[in-house]
Amino acid sequence: MKIKFNLVMFLFLIVNGCTNSTAVKTSEPEIDLVSTFDVSLDMENQKNLESQFDSVLDPQNLDKWMKHMSSKPHHVGSPWSKQNAEYIAKHLKSWGFETEITTFDVLVPFPKIMNLELIEPNKVTLKLNEPALKEDATSSIKKDLLPGYNAFSSDGNVTAELVFVNYGIPGDYEELARLGIDVKGKIVLAKYGGSWRGIKPKVAHENGAIGCIIFSDPKDDGYVRGDVYPKGPYRMEHGIQRGSVLDMPMYPGDPLTPGYGATKDAKRLAIEDAPTIMKIPVMPISYADALPLLKALEGPVAPDNWKGGLPVTYHVGPGPAKVNLHLEFEWKLRTAYNPVGRIKGSVYPNEWIMRGNHHDGWAQGAADPISGMVSLMEEARAIGELLKTGWKPKRTLIYAGWDAEEPALLGSTEWVEHNRDEIREKMVAYINTDGTGVGFLGVGGSHSLEKFVNEVSAEVLDPVQNISLQERNRARLRVNGNKDAERKDLRIYPLGAGSDYTAFIHHAGVPSLNLGFGGESGGGSYHSIFDSYDHYKRFSDGDYKYGTTLAKVNGRLVLRLSESDILPFRFTNMVDNIATFIESNKKLAEDVTKKTDERNNLLDLKAFTIAGNPKKTYLPPQRLDEVPSFDFSSLDAAFVRLNASAWNYEKALSKLQKGSLSAAKKSEINNILKNVDQAMVSDGGLPRRDWFKNMIYAPGFYTGYGVKTLPGIREGLEQRNWNEVDTYIQEVAKALDRAAAKINMASNILSR
Amino acid sequence: MKIKFNLVMFLFLIVNGCTNSTAVKTSEPEIDLVSTFDVSLDMENQKNLESQFDSVLDPQNLDKWMKHMSSKPHHVGSPWSKQNAEYIAKHLKSWGFETEITTFDVLVPFPKIMNLELIEPNKVTLKLNEPALKEDATSSIKKDLLPGYNAFSSDGNVTAELVFVNYGIPGDYEELARLGIDVKGKIVLAKYGGSWRGIKPKVAHENGAIGCIIFSDPKDDGYVRGDVYPKGPYRMEHGIQRGSVLDMPMYPGDPLTPGYGATKDAKRLAIEDAPTIMKIPVMPISYADALPLLKALEGPVAPDNWKGGLPVTYHVGPGPAKVNLHLEFEWKLRTAYNPVGRIKGSVYPNEWIMRGNHHDGWAQGAADPISGMVSLMEEARAIGELLKTGWKPKRTLIYAGWDAEEPALLGSTEWVEHNRDEIREKMVAYINTDGTGVGFLGVGGSHSLEKFVNEVSAEVLDPVQNISLQERNRARLRVNGNKDAERKDLRIYPLGAGSDYTAFIHHAGVPSLNLGFGGESGGGSYHSIFDSYDHYKRFSDGDYKYGTTLAKVNGRLVLRLSESDILPFRFTNMVDNIATFIESNKKLAEDVTKKTDERNNLLDLKAFTIAGNPKKTYLPPQRLDEVPSFDFSSLDAAFVRLNASAWNYEKALSKLQKGSLSAAKKSEINNILKNVDQAMVSDGGLPRRDWFKNMIYAPGFYTGYGVKTLPGIREGLEQRNWNEVDTYIQEVAKALDRAAAKINMASNILSR
Repeated sequence: MKIKFNLVMFLFLIVNGCTNSTAVKTSEPEIDLVSTFDVSLDMENQKNLESQFDSVLDPQNLDKWMKHMSSKPHHVGSPWSKQNAEYIAKHLKSWGFETEITTFDVLVPFPKIMNLELIEPNKVTLKLNEPALKEDATSSIKKDLLPGYNAFSSDGNVTAELVFVNYGIPGDYEELARLGIDVKGKIVLAKYGGSWRGIKPKVAHENGAIGCIIFSDPKDDGYVRGDVYPKGPYRMEHGIQRGSVLDMPMYPGDPLTPGYGATKDAKRLAIEDAPTIMKIPVMPISYADALPLLKALEGPVAPDNWKGGLPVTYHVGPGPAKVNLHLEFEWKLRTAYNPVGRIKGSVYPNEWIMRGNHHDGWAQGAADPISGMVSLMEEARAIGELLKTGWKPKRTLIYAGWDAEEPALLGSTEWVEHNRDEIREKMVAYINTDGTGVGFLGVGGSHSLEKFVNEVSAEVLDPVQNISLQERNRARLRVNGNKDAERKDLRIYPLGAGSDYTAFIHHAGVPSLNLGFGGESGGGSYHSIFDSYDHYKRFSDGDYKYGTTLAKVNGRLVLRLSESDILPFRFTNMVDNIATFIESNKKLAEDVTKKTDERNNLLDLKAFTIAGNPKKTYLPPQRLDEVPSFDFSSLDAAFVRLNASAWNYEKALSKLQKGSLSAAKKSEINNILKNVDQAMVSDGGLPRRDWFKNMIYAPGFYTGYGVKTLPGIREGLEQRNWNEVDTYIQEVAKALDRAAAKINMASNILSR
Repeated sequence: MKIKFNLVMFLFLIVNGCTNSTAVKTSEPEIDLVSTFDVSLDMENQKNLESQFDSVLDPQNLDKWMKHMSSKPHHVGSPWSKQNAEYIAKHLKSWGFETEITTFDVLVPFPKIMNLELIEPNKVTLKLNEPALKEDATSSIKKDLLPGYNAFSSDGNVTAELVFVNYGIPGDYEELARLGIDVKGKIVLAKYGGSWRGIKPKVAHENGAIGCIIFSDPKDDGYVRGDVYPKGPYRMEHGIQRGSVLDMPMYPGDPLTPGYGATKDAKRLAIEDAPTIMKIPVMPISYADALPLLKALEGPVAPDNWKGGLPVTYHVGPGPAKVNLHLEFEWKLRTAYNPVGRIKGSVYPNEWIMRGNHHDGWAQGAADPISGMVSLMEEARAIGELLKTGWKPKRTLIYAGWDAEEPALLGSTEWVEHNRDEIREKMVAYINTDGTGVGFLGVGGSHSLEKFVNEVSAEVLDPVQNISLQERNRARLRVNGNKDAERKDLRIYPLGAGSDYTAFIHHAGVPSLNLGFGGESGGGSYHSIFDSYDHYKRFSDGDYKYGTTLAKVNGRLVLRLSESDILPFRFTNMVDNIATFIESNKKLAEDVTKKTDERNNLLDLKAFTIAGNPKKTYLPPQRLDEVPSFDFSSLDAAFVRLNASAWNYEKALSKLQKGSLSAAKKSEINNILKNVDQAMVSDGGLPRRDWFKNMIYAPGFYTGYGVKTLPGIREGLEQRNWNEVDTYIQEVAKALDRAAAKINMASNILSR
């Protein structure tokens, strides 16, 4: 699934509005933080180990494997997906991993009938498919290829007038209301972008629409960005973005087995009872096919920030453009194949370090996901080489290739759900990768690992510029005037959804990371048939320098997690980030109040009416209910306690003499440390979606990929559910207190 | 020439960066400001007079006159321009004005040869003209029509590679330098917008380009904005924006007679010595003709904010697109006809109130300028009706129709230059109009008249909404969250250039105003053959409700200026505005310093290099010279004195008993009041352009229309001429002191 990390970060900054927020002052006196490993790792040995690891990495392997694995369409249920799973398993096995292929039987619809036609004011039959290009060897493959479709659209045969709804997110419907336009009984035409795609039909349905068409606009994803394929990397006129529209912000994974594994014999919901399946037909189209639809629309001219890059005046409608949209799917269980290889830990076999990357793609899927998969494989192979020298990891290493990520994060989610108790007991950390490219290292994840990640990114060199990955990122932050550019550890972004870490961090509460390179790959092959080996070679990491560097980064993360006497969780970074989350939520509460007062005041003054253009319908916005004042004091107090616990742990750590801890104490401490993040999950979960249990992060209910920090509070404010705000201020406070208690326990053992 | 007032205001806010500046606190205790007229006008009589004035206004006259005057092309030198001048004169005469047509002989080039061809990589002959449309009656007229050209382009026949330079303003060349691209020996292709058009060839020439092509991009002026003509009002694909490129920010008016009238026998510069004539050939084209040029460009993809609305990937070049541009002009003196009508003042014949609007257009010019001209004519007619009742104005009223505004503000500038001494002695105020449309009253001008204008706009009702013009503007400010929405008097914007007020305010220092309606007209007929009666009727003020309302506003301004015992200049508003100008200049000094330090620091850290994409040329920006600290204390001190004088005048005024002033005293005071604004001009003028003598406002040397407040200081900062900043801090301080001295003189007489 994979979206570019800079987009993720951007969404995060936008959604959480905290680009300029000032952190709650962490009031403890600064003490010199010791390196994560000063007290817990023999760094000389470790560096030797890592040098050996680096020395065997070979970009040619990535090339060879990518060429093979992306040579045919390999979505879940396809022969080539199964082949790839077996290919991965075979390799893992050959490198010394105990390997099995775990399977789940998951619902994935494939299209049977896909028709879309403009029937009024003129009849236009659309192309609806992507052409073979002589410059792209796999673009001519038709066998086993899924056409451009949205998985988990409903079946349907609907005919109605079109309404152009911009990105189709809630704010766009407020604008439509002001334009006097209602989508009830209409089919909406939405641009890709502005949110995860599944939000568009969900909100369209909530507003009464009976169908949804999503197109890639050239302004966001096409010739406006740069030269299109095959001249350049950007989306060509007939490129279609496939993708899932399952309501994953409610719960990802198999819609029929919520919260438990989709094993052969699992009890399943009836399809019609599955709440996450879209209620209306949804279909993606290219911008070449969107053009005649947009041309046929009349009604008001679209607001300026709705306009795209096609050479027409964008109108909103409704009509006179009328379309028939007819979709039927084959609703069948498909077998997802997750190859999983293990190396049992020699000292702490019950402490698991897990790596994962999905292997299924929408079509040939070279960038997404094979680029990340082959990096993971090379990393596993290098660990295999270390095994050959007689070395053994102290902790258990698990390497997985997930199937069926694209339709609904199915492979990973079912695996987590099925093994949840054991995961919560044993897993120390989950490290995810997905498609990766060229440029800057992007890291998202649990902030208890922020310091740890920075220690690695400060050591690994950028393969092109002769400088550490961290310093290259820092240079970019400096050029962009980011206030955090001089922060010793660069911030990692909080995780929303969008790849296989989702079930680990949001459902099980396991500390997770997500890593990849990007920012200089450009491109618009995402989820089209042009996400091919040829495209990747020409426009992305064609020499696999960055893919190999990613293996170096992840290899270090895995090896240090595995070998540390004391697990490298560090909490002062975590509290500093949580402080910014609290501040930005308080700021949001202020903004919501201010905006409410301002709008209602303008309505009292009839300012919208007086300033309105009498020749154009643009109604005043709705009056807003008053915002109560919120009492953040319990959260502030809990934060103070958490902050103290984090700094006390640092103090205890700094006083520790190397080698002074008994094995039993180490074990005791590690058992606590790995549960600090888990302590911040709450079984009750979030409102209307209790699958999401993490109180600190969640994907937005109305943004999809985009993360919401302290989501119970934030979405209460955004959705104006004031009592939820109060409830979740308490819930987050409790979560922080649970974490503080764990950290204090660890400190006490250290100081004993 | 006329640009929409909201654009002017926007440019002002951008250029002067003062949207959020906080004013210097005007430290005087608030006193209740009396109405401008409480002590100086018999308001009952005046209201009767104004009611009579209003009662005769008839929209049908505007319709009839517009239809006649815009029925043929009427640029300076055309038969229809002369006819229109005589038509205006005839009417003024018939309404009781002593009327003459004053003439000047001014240089205006007409095109002889206009060729533009793409010659590489493929040959494309461009259309270069606008089609006749059946929906537009005058669009088929070819007789006397000037084609799409830029007046005061040089002659030239050049062949070179193209470089796309965005808007072609100085910042764009900094970006080109970072892209490693030089325009030396190239022909630049620039979008209209971002500055006045004449800036583009001027800056291109400064950077070594040998030709300049300017096109209307559909993103700024075409289908992206709305439906194009004839379906809607916006610029259709072949519409061409004509216009002058004379270097008017140096000096407007006849390039051969700088600073004096272009009379028959005037001494003239040789054409080759005229510094304001462009040094390279320049030509405007439509977006249909720009498309093949843009398609043929390669090189780097244009930066995001350079991209327009055509369906191509915008590349910068240079080449492979190569063009031949061949332009030759007939350089001839043409006679400009300024009809000028006077009604001699019955009490103060040597105090002049002047109204003006140009009558020449680029083609049929219905909106620009006839819409404003016919409003002025109806206003003059209504005054003629008042004369019939036996009423006579106390002061002399002068109504003018300016010729040759479009090529260089020629008619008005030569008239001002020729009559400068008498104008400076006698003129109380100049009130300008130009093209006008539908929507909101826009007012720019001298801030000594701000309170006066507000008193009028608070009384005249919007013709559609049943509310005063002032309250309608206030509602819009409220909706836009403008911090000045609740200011008692709404701000008027400071004047740059762009219409016939230029010579009055910037050269002679006469208090000036510029008024018009806009904001709801939409449209893209500007300077094309589609600025027609048919277009105006369908899409703008087709029922002339706003044109008639404009006559009400200007009629009141003229009648109150004429009848007041004490002229309605009020200075507390003026100082409040000057305070914001000072603050925004100080802020600019801070910003320049900060930006300099930040950039040089990033260069020291090599951040640009480290963060740069190794596959793309994007050089670090140049190191900036250090910014000295500036001493604003003399200006602050002068401001304190000016502020005190303004409030003392208010106090003196508030204590005045009605009817207590002798005629001699009134005369003495008025003589002083009308010179306060003039006191702020300085004979030395601005650096490198001493024609511009106003120390408070000027059009930007590198923005054209866009105003610069305290221009000597501001442009010193922007151009990094630090010694100019110091010099003009002193010059402005002296100007404020001269004004304060005048105001104090007036207060002393009042209190005597």
